[in-house]
Amino acid sequence: MRTAYHEELVFITDQLVEMTRLTASALNRATQALMDADLELAESVITADEHIDAVRRDLDKRAVDVLARQQPVATDLRTLVTAMRMSSDLERMGDLARHVAKVARLRYPESAIPASLRATFTEMAQIAERMVVKTGSIIDTNDVGGASRLKDDDDRMDELHREVFRVLLSERWEGAVEAAVDATLLSRYYERFGDHAVSVAHRVVYLVTGEWHDEMDLDDALEMRTADSARSTAPVHGG
Amino acid sequence: MRTAYHEELVFITDQLVEMTRLTASALNRATQALMDADLELAESVITADEHIDAVRRDLDKRAVDVLARQQPVATDLRTLVTAMRMSSDLERMGDLARHVAKVARLRYPESAIPASLRATFTEMAQIAERMVVKTGSIIDTNDVGGASRLKDDDDRMDELHREVFRVLLSERWEGAVEAAVDATLLSRYYERFGDHAVSVAHRVVYLVTGEWHDEMDLDDALEMRTADSARSTAPVHGG
Repeated sequence: MRTAYHEELVFITDQLVEMTRLTASALNRATQALMDADLELAESVITADEHIDAVRRDLDKRAVDVLARQQPVATDLRTLVTAMRMSSDLERMGDLARHVAKVARLRYPESAIPASLRATFTEMAQIAERMVVKTGSIIDTNDVGGASRLKDDDDRMDELHREVFRVLLSERWEGAVEAAVDATLLSRYYERFGDHAVSVAHRVVYLVTGEWHDEMDLDDALEMRTADSARSTAPVHGG
Repeated sequence: MRTAYHEELVFITDQLVEMTRLTASALNRATQALMDADLELAESVITADEHIDAVRRDLDKRAVDVLARQQPVATDLRTLVTAMRMSSDLERMGDLARHVAKVARLRYPESAIPASLRATFTEMAQIAERMVVKTGSIIDTNDVGGASRLKDDDDRMDELHREVFRVLLSERWEGAVEAAVDATLLSRYYERFGDHAVSVAHRVVYLVTGEWHDEMDLDDALEMRTADSARSTAPVHGG
């Protein structure tokens, strides 16, 4: 019984890593669909999100079952509580990749990304994907220090999010309101994807150290910093 | 010890209801700050969000402590797991109210809402507030049927979200790109606030019935419907 119990904990962790792979792939394909106006690829991302949701449901169900049947304490309890929090973040990341794919589908056969923003969105997508790949490796190896290595990526993501608004609100913006609405939502989707990746990585700190408040403070600090900086370069007047 | 244990469970539920009150108040004041370009009010919402975060941290810490010390099963276990999920939704609703207040602050002394969208946003705010008030009462009374009574509000919210895009993309839109960017983000904040309220209400179903898959399927159905319908009226071409 003990063995089955520990196998179950290992399985749950493996499924979290699998979810990072699935969301990385979903975002990569959604971005390609967006850039190339590839309807078929967009549809495949939208459909595949059901699988991510199913993995999450199964993971959470297993976690609650283990809580009920084994009544774990200490590290095992933290593993399960943390796993349910991570699965929630990862499922949301899948949703965000699906949202990107839906914008691609909505604008087909055009690309929703105007020429002046292609480089910015390409880099946002690369960073977001790199962040979730790193997060998968942090979960896999219980790497407490790993969360801090996402900081540069996260800072760069915030910079690119500001850059999108800078382009949209500049004199040289050549697009229609519709393209601005698309770019606003897409930029937010990529930025939130990155936020959730950081959030998952930070939960490893709680998992390993049991330092609850530290983890939460990191979360809060992150959330505040992101929200503050995201639009700070937008003009203060007008509208 | 048993008594203290059950008091703790009641306290956790009370704190969830308190969080619905705090987020309802935050969104109400954020909307007023937005409409009236009231900088002081906007600042007070931004500052008060720290209190919502603190209530959430305390609640989650208590839930984990009870899991570790009492090793609850059945309904009590579901109460604690569900409480942690609800607190996550409610904390995010507080963040969204803070985001609204930050747009108000960013555009001061102007209002970020152009005349042609004031009625739409006023109704979105009223519905969002009503939804979280209902959710508080559903938590308070363990009202399994209550979630379904949020449906009309949620449908109307989706309609208003589409209406914002319709106005932004219509010929008669008189505003600049900046106002369109603001309206796009604000509309999404209100819509997501409503989504989280529905999500919290649906978790009561799991809490009371233990029907895990049903709860999750409701969640998925809701999420898919919202994402599909939100932008379905936007033009298919252009950008």
